[in-house]
Amino acid sequence: MEGDALQIGLIGAGRIGQVHAQNLSRFIPQSSLCMVTDIVEANAIACAQRFGIPHTSADYREILNNRDIDAVIVCSSTDTHASIIVEAAKARKHVFCEKPIDFNLNRIDTALEAVNQAGIILQIGFNRRFDSNFRRIQKAVASGEIGKPQQLHIVSRDPTLPPRDYLQKSGGIFMDMTIHDFDLARFLIGAEVTEIYATGNTLIDPTISEIGDLDTTMILLKFANGAMGVIANSRQAVYGYDQRAEVFGSGGQIASSNVHPNSTEIAVENRIYKDPPLNSFIDRYRESFLEEMRQFVEVSMNGGPSPVSGTEARIPVVMAEAALLSCQENRPVRLEEIR
Amino acid sequence: MEGDALQIGLIGAGRIGQVHAQNLSRFIPQSSLCMVTDIVEANAIACAQRFGIPHTSADYREILNNRDIDAVIVCSSTDTHASIIVEAAKARKHVFCEKPIDFNLNRIDTALEAVNQAGIILQIGFNRRFDSNFRRIQKAVASGEIGKPQQLHIVSRDPTLPPRDYLQKSGGIFMDMTIHDFDLARFLIGAEVTEIYATGNTLIDPTISEIGDLDTTMILLKFANGAMGVIANSRQAVYGYDQRAEVFGSGGQIASSNVHPNSTEIAVENRIYKDPPLNSFIDRYRESFLEEMRQFVEVSMNGGPSPVSGTEARIPVVMAEAALLSCQENRPVRLEEIR
Amino acid sequence: MEGDALQIGLIGAGRIGQVHAQNLSRFIPQSSLCMVTDIVEANAIACAQRFGIPHTSADYREILNNRDIDAVIVCSSTDTHASIIVEAAKARKHVFCEKPIDFNLNRIDTALEAVNQAGIILQIGFNRRFDSNFRRIQKAVASGEIGKPQQLHIVSRDPTLPPRDYLQKSGGIFMDMTIHDFDLARFLIGAEVTEIYATGNTLIDPTISEIGDLDTTMILLKFANGAMGVIANSRQAVYGYDQRAEVFGSGGQIASSNVHPNSTEIAVENRIYKDPPLNSFIDRYRESFLEEMRQFVEVSMNGGPSPVSGTEARIPVVMAEAALLSCQENRPVRLEEIR
Amino acid sequence: MEGDALQIGLIGAGRIGQVHAQNLSRFIPQSSLCMVTDIVEANAIACAQRFGIPHTSADYREILNNRDIDAVIVCSSTDTHASIIVEAAKARKHVFCEKPIDFNLNRIDTALEAVNQAGIILQIGFNRRFDSNFRRIQKAVASGEIGKPQQLHIVSRDPTLPPRDYLQKSGGIFMDMTIHDFDLARFLIGAEVTEIYATGNTLIDPTISEIGDLDTTMILLKFANGAMGVIANSRQAVYGYDQRAEVFGSGGQIASSNVHPNSTEIAVENRIYKDPPLNSFIDRYRESFLEEMRQFVEVSMNGGPSPVSGTEARIPVVMAEAALLSCQENRPVRLEEIR
Repeated sequence: MEGDALQIGLIGAGRIGQVHAQNLSRFIPQSSLCMVTDIVEANAIACAQRFGIPHTSADYREILNNRDIDAVIVCSSTDTHASIIVEAAKARKHVFCEKPIDFNLNRIDTALEAVNQAGIILQIGFNRRFDSNFRRIQKAVASGEIGKPQQLHIVSRDPTLPPRDYLQKSGGIFMDMTIHDFDLARFLIGAEVTEIYATGNTLIDPTISEIGDLDTTMILLKFANGAMGVIANSRQAVYGYDQRAEVFGSGGQIASSNVHPNSTEIAVENRIYKDPPLNSFIDRYRESFLEEMRQFVEVSMNGGPSPVSGTEARIPVVMAEAALLSCQENRPVRLEEIR
Repeated sequence: MEGDALQIGLIGAGRIGQVHAQNLSRFIPQSSLCMVTDIVEANAIACAQRFGIPHTSADYREILNNRDIDAVIVCSSTDTHASIIVEAAKARKHVFCEKPIDFNLNRIDTALEAVNQAGIILQIGFNRRFDSNFRRIQKAVASGEIGKPQQLHIVSRDPTLPPRDYLQKSGGIFMDMTIHDFDLARFLIGAEVTEIYATGNTLIDPTISEIGDLDTTMILLKFANGAMGVIANSRQAVYGYDQRAEVFGSGGQIASSNVHPNSTEIAVENRIYKDPPLNSFIDRYRESFLEEMRQFVEVSMNGGPSPVSGTEARIPVVMAEAALLSCQENRPVRLEEIR
Repeated sequence: MEGDALQIGLIGAGRIGQVHAQNLSRFIPQSSLCMVTDIVEANAIACAQRFGIPHTSADYREILNNRDIDAVIVCSSTDTHASIIVEAAKARKHVFCEKPIDFNLNRIDTALEAVNQAGIILQIGFNRRFDSNFRRIQKAVASGEIGKPQQLHIVSRDPTLPPRDYLQKSGGIFMDMTIHDFDLARFLIGAEVTEIYATGNTLIDPTISEIGDLDTTMILLKFANGAMGVIANSRQAVYGYDQRAEVFGSGGQIASSNVHPNSTEIAVENRIYKDPPLNSFIDRYRESFLEEMRQFVEVSMNGGPSPVSGTEARIPVVMAEAALLSCQENRPVRLEEIR
Repeated sequence: MEGDALQIGLIGAGRIGQVHAQNLSRFIPQSSLCMVTDIVEANAIACAQRFGIPHTSADYREILNNRDIDAVIVCSSTDTHASIIVEAAKARKHVFCEKPIDFNLNRIDTALEAVNQAGIILQIGFNRRFDSNFRRIQKAVASGEIGKPQQLHIVSRDPTLPPRDYLQKSGGIFMDMTIHDFDLARFLIGAEVTEIYATGNTLIDPTISEIGDLDTTMILLKFANGAMGVIANSRQAVYGYDQRAEVFGSGGQIASSNVHPNSTEIAVENRIYKDPPLNSFIDRYRESFLEEMRQFVEVSMNGGPSPVSGTEARIPVVMAEAALLSCQENRPVRLEEIR
């Protein structure tokens, strides 16, 4: 069966790269992860040993130049995404790329143009679309189970503030963190956002304002279908990773809650409690990382539209820019103002 | 309107007597609580002042001899219930009497005979039947919402072990505590219990065995319709008053949970918690005490069957005797063996 | 004891007037409701009969002119509130007045001036502050149980769209409905709102735009302490009255859920369900209406600051004006712009 | 790395055999599943193709005779378990065997004797011990988080009645279904059961009594430490697989609830609902099947006590016999009466 398997190369052996390596090598028998590269080759070698990947390199071009490889998984740093996509398109390899494609819309457009001309599949890593809770909400909205959607709440809070040097390269909270929620908002409501009003503050660590960033934000969205929504972000929820959504519609409401490691409730003197929610994105979204990769392998082998196309993935970047502009000028910003 | 109100006398101004006094004087305008008696007259006077009751006495016969009084509420000690019922029946007064009628079935039968001959209404204080949670379960069973009932779980645990002198007069755990659950079991399933197997232990305070009592029990019930059930009792749940039931049937299941003082959930570092359940029977069953009294006033004024008749209330006493015998002989006991 | 009771007159025997009449006459023995007036005297008479109130009139001045009356409850139409407050202040009667004092800030200020000069107590009917769920949240914030507050969510949705003629006199959704949430927001966070951005639409009934109103809104709030919040309003939630809040802070989060008529959960084929939440504001907020009245009687008799002073109650009106202006001009509006 | 992997043979390629095949071949890289046998060789071949197992046979002896194989997974029919264990012990292969070892205690003892003499590891497939919910309960009891255990409730209900021919070979409800709960009871409480009183009925399908079986049972357990417990079994819960436990102790209570496919709650007109629980044992206990196999591979490679030894696994068979005897004679049966 190995002869028929989709041959895959992995570019970047960091934390998320290893998540994909594990999923491909263990849980998706239709694929064969045959090479991993990392600019620090020791990382590539460690990853290869851990997951039984036969070939390694420090240079991702070895993957692109390998005629036996059908598809690449791009988990390198964000500033390399766009150019690797262009090169991969030229090499006629399907691409799964972590979000975002780029912080710059021009570079995104160049990459999408190359993808388009090559006719390859490009899937961007907006994994939350594949989470069973959010999928259930999306299904309820799309099927009319709760009528026409009217209001959306997304709560998305990280467990702990990342280190300063991460924040400095992150592109800012809207581009780094809210970008997932921007994508999720469109996915859940099934309509385009037309206008954004964003507000933010530095309530966790005031010194973050020195690098021009925020740690606590609320963003109001207007949708083309008349619905409205809000995203609440925080860089630090002391009780753990807080990832919830609810959609209110003309026929009802659907709300998801956090995911806990077990279903028990404990009662002791003066207190009824349960264990805190799954606390890292890797645990919380484990299943979604596997599912997005399964679907990427499926469409790469059998064709079909990309589950999360480059065109789809461009929009959250526009939204992040609009949110930033809204914050800077303290006014609602229409998405058509961006570019 | 006062002229039309049901004139009521209260016998016994202890804790439960005051609950009824409050409900009658404040929340049931169709009734008029005109006299309260207590063997300690100071208690009667204090109760009268608190709830605006015009007359007091140390002798309950003053109530029974008062021609203007239509009905009596009997909250005196258990050993007086049967004889007061007999006297009240002779005086042609409707009677609401706290549970149990008596620990002795002969005395119960004598009282019921008197009630029957006088044609008065006798209602026994099995208040849990009037709790909105248990009523919802009963309704689900009776209406077929969960099909035919097959299995019953009742969890009934007190917050703290009562003092030794209370326990010594209590009649034992089955007669004092489980008796409510015995009544609830029949009420929820809508069928008679035919056989009981009871087991118990002294896990909270081993010295309770010195007075021949138990503090922790589980009782298995067989019903005439083939259903089976279990009652779990404890004299001490450190997390508070634990009062739950669930019924499983051919078409589904219904389960109630405890009642909390508010609906909030709080998340802090390493813990998600909520406030403990309502912790005293007076808070937890507040609404049921009011509702049972409302219905007593209603049937006393307008006729109709007793919401909890003496015949109904006799059965839990039989069950308590069967449970005790089962424990003593470590064997299942058929209810028909009792008497 | 009646001699010592606070003598109260009720102005307006509509729905909310009857709620207060019931609470005062049945559940607050320290008060004596001695007169009720309504411009439709039949309403006053019906109310008097129902709750045993000795005197009625079509003219509220009979209450104000009655020297034996200590306090008035103002439940007449909103346009009469301010002038009745002024007259009551002159007559040295304490005033409990339904919200809002007025739609017009000048008239509010005139009324507050009169209250101030007379030294009477004025309490405004922002009853949600007395709800046990919202009080628990407020307590958690004030006590530091969840650290410093950073983000607030209020969801407030009515079960059904009111009739057109109600809406036409309502003052608009912000003044009629959100005003409760504006008050609640300040109460929960314990800080002033400085700026508001509001967006709204007519998603339930587009013809509401004909009368210049909205039926679905989301309002973003900025607080003086750096916190931010959102209020989601809808005139129609088909699943029932939806009244929830959550506050996120540096040390955790607290969230309330809706209130259900019982605690049961039912499982049948293909579905796990529970009964819908309490569906009218009278049921949902029953306890809060009683508690606000209890506190009014308490401070009227024994002195102390008003539980919800006129100064406090003026602010939500300012917020409603700011929200309306924000919607009209599609921009954030600072509260200091109003007036 | 394959050279170091534990070489495993699988005997029996039915439903549970395939679960283990999948776990070993995909998720446990330390093991290498090199042969599968089934008396219907086509089943073995299908399984081998699905999971990439190199060798197949109709004869399990090919596994036992293969010197390269270190361990066997026994998923053949129950009547073959004991003799295969004996043969495997002689061949010095570690054995993972599905429960129960046998319905007959003599044959179990013969098998355990062989295991003991050979010094191999024998692990029995009581997978529920590895479920995260039940492990959390066990941990709470063992650590004293809820004090000393006093009462246990286990609810264990299958979604649908198995076919008649399955039931006829099943060994009866206590041996086939309750056996898991008997094991779980000891595991959760951490003490031995000394006495059992069982009651049962045929409420789902009365004709099951024709084959001497029951479909609905409740079993009361007494533990050596004074605790007491109840197991409620049903062959058919229309709302799905119902698998819950709660332990009450001197310091509190811990209860698990069912596992749902997502965390959403949906509210529509007149109903608040969620999706039904995971409905097959393969979905519900997926993680536990993987975890038990991981631990088997671990101890087979590195030594250490069996996670579920033959001695441990013998006891639930004794309990099943005691329960059957209790039902037949309608009396409590001490475990020491069995054998």
